[in-house]
Amino acid sequence: MTLKMDADALKAFLKAEFPQVCDDFEIERLDEELLTVRLVTSQRHLRPGGTVSGPSMFGLVDVGVYLAILARIGPVALAVTTNCSIDFMRKPVAGADLLAETRILKLGRALAVGDVLVYSEGDDRPVARASLTYSIPPKST
Amino acid sequence: MTLKMDADALKAFLKAEFPQVCDDFEIERLDEELLTVRLVTSQRHLRPGGTVSGPSMFGLVDVGVYLAILARIGPVALAVTTNCSIDFMRKPVAGADLLAETRILKLGRALAVGDVLVYSEGDDRPVARASLTYSIPPKST
Amino acid sequence: MTLKMDADALKAFLKAEFPQVCDDFEIERLDEELLTVRLVTSQRHLRPGGTVSGPSMFGLVDVGVYLAILARIGPVALAVTTNCSIDFMRKPVAGADLLAETRILKLGRALAVGDVLVYSEGDDRPVARASLTYSIPPKST
Amino acid sequence: MTLKMDADALKAFLKAEFPQVCDDFEIERLDEELLTVRLVTSQRHLRPGGTVSGPSMFGLVDVGVYLAILARIGPVALAVTTNCSIDFMRKPVAGADLLAETRILKLGRALAVGDVLVYSEGDDRPVARASLTYSIPPKST
Repeated sequence: MTLKMDADALKAFLKAEFPQVCDDFEIERLDEELLTVRLVTSQRHLRPGGTVSGPSMFGLVDVGVYLAILARIGPVALAVTTNCSIDFMRKPVAGADLLAETRILKLGRALAVGDVLVYSEGDDRPVARASLTYSIPPKST
Repeated sequence: MTLKMDADALKAFLKAEFPQVCDDFEIERLDEELLTVRLVTSQRHLRPGGTVSGPSMFGLVDVGVYLAILARIGPVALAVTTNCSIDFMRKPVAGADLLAETRILKLGRALAVGDVLVYSEGDDRPVARASLTYSIPPKST
Repeated sequence: MTLKMDADALKAFLKAEFPQVCDDFEIERLDEELLTVRLVTSQRHLRPGGTVSGPSMFGLVDVGVYLAILARIGPVALAVTTNCSIDFMRKPVAGADLLAETRILKLGRALAVGDVLVYSEGDDRPVARASLTYSIPPKST
Repeated sequence: MTLKMDADALKAFLKAEFPQVCDDFEIERLDEELLTVRLVTSQRHLRPGGTVSGPSMFGLVDVGVYLAILARIGPVALAVTTNCSIDFMRKPVAGADLLAETRILKLGRALAVGDVLVYSEGDDRPVARASLTYSIPPKST
C-alpha cells in the first residue's frame, strides 16, 4: 500500500480539519508498515493519579487509524469510524506520553480496518490494544 | 440487583473523584433496570459541523456503565474498564445533548458487563451502541 | 422497518443456502421488534460437561443477525459478517437449548448492525451478549 | 513469559480435554513470541463455495489464545473466554488451511489478553483479526 501523504501533509491536514485537537498529537514515524502517533500528554488528558484517561486513549487510537488510512487514500475528511474494540491492559505510566503503533490490515473500497498497540513511552509492555473499522465514502478511492 | 446508591449519591461521588468531568454529566434516571446519563454537550465535545466527537461518546458510555456498577456495589473508586466495544451507527444530531441508556447484564465477583444505547435527545434512532467490561477489585464486593 | 420475509420464508431460505446447519435452528418469534432463534442443542454443539461451545454460540448469534437482516431486505445470500464482538457472561445451563433474541439497531445502505442476547431456555440471566456488523452488497437494497 | 508446556504437551492436553475437536488443529510453531495453529480444513468447516465458516474461524482463534495461555500457565482446563472481538476482512481461499498467529499481550493474575491474525495458507493478506480475553481461575497461577 503506497503512501499518498507524508507526515507533514498529514499534520497540515489535521491542523486544518481538527484544529481543536491537532496539538495533542505528533507523528513519530510513517512508512508503509507502521504509523506511530504520540499523544503529547497534558493536564486535560489525565485522571486523578496522573494516568491518561480512557477517552484520551480512545482519541489517540482513533486518530492513529484515521491518519494511517488518509496516508494511503489521500486527504478525505469524510472517512468515519464505525466500530472500535479496545482492551485496556495496564495502567499507563504517570507522566509519560503515549505512543500508538498503528497498522492497516485491510483497505477496501468501502471499509478499512486498522490495529493499534499503545505504549507508555519507555515501557515495552502495551497499555492498550485497539482495532477500528472506518467506513470510506464511495467517491474517495 | 438492589441499588446501594441513588442518583444524588452517585453525583456526589463523581464530583469528589472526577471533578474535571463531573459537570459534563447529569443522571436522568436510575432504577434497577436502567440508568440514563445525559452528556451536557458543550463546545469541547464537538467536532467541526457541531456533532459530538468519538472520544466524548466513549467518555459518556464509560461513565454510564461505571455509575451503573457503583450504584450496585457502592462507592468503589477502583473499578477499571478492561474492554469496550462500540459501534457508531449514525451522526449525532447537531446541538442536541446525548442520552446514554445503560443496563448491567452481569455483575460477578471479578467482572461486570454493561450495555449502552446512545441517543441524540429527541431522536429515537440510536447514535451508538457500546458494551463494556469492568474489572472489580477483590475487596470491593 | 417493515418485514419482507416471514419465518417460513426465512427457514426455506436457510434450508436452500445453508443445508448443513439449517436443522440446528428454529425461528421462535419474528416481528418488527425482535427475532428469536433457538439453537436446538445436540451432541456436536457441546463441550465436556454438557455446555454449549463458544463456536456454537458464535454460530447462533451470527445466524440470528443474518436472518433479522434478511427479513428486512429480502433473500440476499451475499450479506457478510464484517465484525462481531461477543461477551460470554455465564455458563449455559447443561442440556438446555439456547435462545437468541436479536434486534436490528441500524439498517443502512452498506452496513447493518444487530444486537443479540443469548439465554439458556428457562433462565432469565443472559448467557452471552453479542453485536455484529454485516456488509450488504450494493445491489441488494 | 517463559513457557511451561511445549507443542507436544499442548497437543496431549487438547486430546484429553477436547477430544471432539483436537484433530482439527495442529500446532505449527510455539515460542515465547508466537503460537501458530493450523486449522486442518475439512468438509464440516466449510460454507457453500468452499470457504471456511465464521464459527470455524471463531473456534480457531479461541483455541489459539487458549493454547498460548496454557503454554504459559500450565495445563489449567478452567480458563474461560469472556470476550472476543473479531473482524472478518477477506474471504478465505477455498480449499486452503487457515493459520492463526497468536500473541499474548497480557497475562495477569485474573485476566489474559491475546491477539490473533488468521491467514489462508499461501496468502499473506490476513483473512481475519481477533482479540480475546480469558478469565483465569484464582488458584491456577
